[in-house]
Amino acid sequence: MYAAIINGPGQIEYAEVPDPRLSTGGDAIVRVVASCVCGSDLWRYRGVLATAPGDRIGHEFIGVVEEIGPSVTDVRVGDFVVAPFYDCDMTCPNCLTGMSVACLTRSLWASNDSIGGFADGAQGELVRVPRADSTLLVLPEAPDEALVPHVLALCDVFTTGYHAARSAQVAAGDNVVVIGDGAVGLCAVLAASRSGAERIVVMSRHPDRQQIARTFGATDVLTARGAEAVTEVRDMFEGIGPDRVLECVGTNDAWDQAIRSVRPGGAVAVVGVPHGGPELPARYMFSNNIRLSGGSTPVRDYLPELLGEVIEGNLRPGVVFDAQMPLSQVGEAYRAMDERRSIKVMLRPGAQPGAVNP
Amino acid sequence: MYAAIINGPGQIEYAEVPDPRLSTGGDAIVRVVASCVCGSDLWRYRGVLATAPGDRIGHEFIGVVEEIGPSVTDVRVGDFVVAPFYDCDMTCPNCLTGMSVACLTRSLWASNDSIGGFADGAQGELVRVPRADSTLLVLPEAPDEALVPHVLALCDVFTTGYHAARSAQVAAGDNVVVIGDGAVGLCAVLAASRSGAERIVVMSRHPDRQQIARTFGATDVLTARGAEAVTEVRDMFEGIGPDRVLECVGTNDAWDQAIRSVRPGGAVAVVGVPHGGPELPARYMFSNNIRLSGGSTPVRDYLPELLGEVIEGNLRPGVVFDAQMPLSQVGEAYRAMDERRSIKVMLRPGAQPGAVNP
Repeated sequence: MYAAIINGPGQIEYAEVPDPRLSTGGDAIVRVVASCVCGSDLWRYRGVLATAPGDRIGHEFIGVVEEIGPSVTDVRVGDFVVAPFYDCDMTCPNCLTGMSVACLTRSLWASNDSIGGFADGAQGELVRVPRADSTLLVLPEAPDEALVPHVLALCDVFTTGYHAARSAQVAAGDNVVVIGDGAVGLCAVLAASRSGAERIVVMSRHPDRQQIARTFGATDVLTARGAEAVTEVRDMFEGIGPDRVLECVGTNDAWDQAIRSVRPGGAVAVVGVPHGGPELPARYMFSNNIRLSGGSTPVRDYLPELLGEVIEGNLRPGVVFDAQMPLSQVGEAYRAMDERRSIKVMLRPGAQPGAVNP
Repeated sequence: MYAAIINGPGQIEYAEVPDPRLSTGGDAIVRVVASCVCGSDLWRYRGVLATAPGDRIGHEFIGVVEEIGPSVTDVRVGDFVVAPFYDCDMTCPNCLTGMSVACLTRSLWASNDSIGGFADGAQGELVRVPRADSTLLVLPEAPDEALVPHVLALCDVFTTGYHAARSAQVAAGDNVVVIGDGAVGLCAVLAASRSGAERIVVMSRHPDRQQIARTFGATDVLTARGAEAVTEVRDMFEGIGPDRVLECVGTNDAWDQAIRSVRPGGAVAVVGVPHGGPELPARYMFSNNIRLSGGSTPVRDYLPELLGEVIEGNLRPGVVFDAQMPLSQVGEAYRAMDERRSIKVMLRPGAQPGAVNP
């Protein structure tokens, strides 16, 4: 089969690799219908996180089950499935508390640490899923083409924005500020809107992203940054700040801005993967009763409810995909996102390039 | 009148000071019936926080209103009142969100920053309360002598333990670990028990404190500290840790132990005033979805509900007072707490020394 390989910073190759083989009895081979590039993939593309030549990449995919091991009982050949960005058993103590992302035997895609050996990256034609029954969610039927981006968005990007809103306990009537106008930030806007937030302010300087944010329910756009942004945001909300701030960037500055923007007694949720380990202003947080939560999203736990809403057409997170490319052009997909020409690129094995309008 | 003065580390004096005078129109003079020494007072007694010669001290008091300004409408002369450890207006944006402790015009007792000038420390015979109507809560009638310690405990110590449980959202069936067996830690045990926690583990090496913790609802006692404590606590709860950890010490080590003890997706609340500004393990917290909350307790917001329970006899937090002394022996009260001979000392103007058995 063919798959994306990252050989080093800026070096994405579309190359032939070995077909995956079943090895655990409980695993499945899924033929990828759609995958995509994540903002966190760019950390490796930019050399912030290390890569080794030949590394596979990608962790968001939906597809059709092509083969199953003898002990797979719930997933069948031909099923259309959606996968979280990790595999999990759904029976360990963490899975039982709704924290499948911290499954005690969790592994990530494109990893040699998976049960039964290597599990493929999502940016490829086929993926071996080590524990098919507990990891995959089966759709009632194959989705219409128009539904594909919305289902794909559940693998990580929307569920991460949703996790921000959940972690901060956004509720009806809340005032919410979203820091970050990337795909995750936009999804956080949508999630806050879905929770009934009254005002949703997005920090953004890009007209195209502002437009999607408005579509997703943002009521206000602010272009300020840093200390100026903190002051503007506080001033918008009676001088004390909003009830909730959703941090969807992952830098020290963004964490700090979030913590200093929210009102005393308010909640900050962070879902941007932190790089460099921010030094949190612990005393400031204490003095102001700031609640800090968030982290990696437990996608598998959220999937059943959210997939239902997507299938019914009530939730349309796939709007964040502003470009579609054939998997063979995966290198261009990385370049487009790295250069901010694209918000998020959907990859289709065998597809024609072009914009999507989900 | 007479009041406690802290002239420097270890130097507590019982001395004559000027009687307070009404100055704002909305203020009141309260004759103190009982006050006490707080663990945070010890930071100044030990020289960790600075003092200037002649400084007044103490921030927990209950008493009888002796005089009111002309614009006071709700509080009357002769009323028995309980005070938070701060004064507040209950009308600013923070007060309206239930965060009276962050009142935009808040001041603390024994402070020159108060509205209308100096507001006395609680360890004295009289206290000027700058905004009587919004700061004080009036009891329906003067409490029985046996009720006095339980009402006094609402000024800060119990409401701080309660704030830990509230901030961590302790709910029925939760497993809770309390770090700290001081008066606040013991109150956190009581608050967790009141919230229906199933197992409550207290970290304690002192038999007298363990005994009170058991009375308050602790189901388990652990004597380990640091990394060993983290391991023991995790092992008690399926290898992943408890649902909630209430940190009631305020040191870097205690914060770290709390964060590393709780299960992924669990919540830590901190109510020990942090000294030295802990550097939080932000990446660890992110990877494990640890929720961090807490801070200074909004006593005034909690008082109405809790005072009702105390008056009805359903809540008996005053058990943390294991000694009572006349205010004139305030120096000995500090020594007894500093040397850990006493958990928390109640001070009574004019009273006889002796143990209390609330």
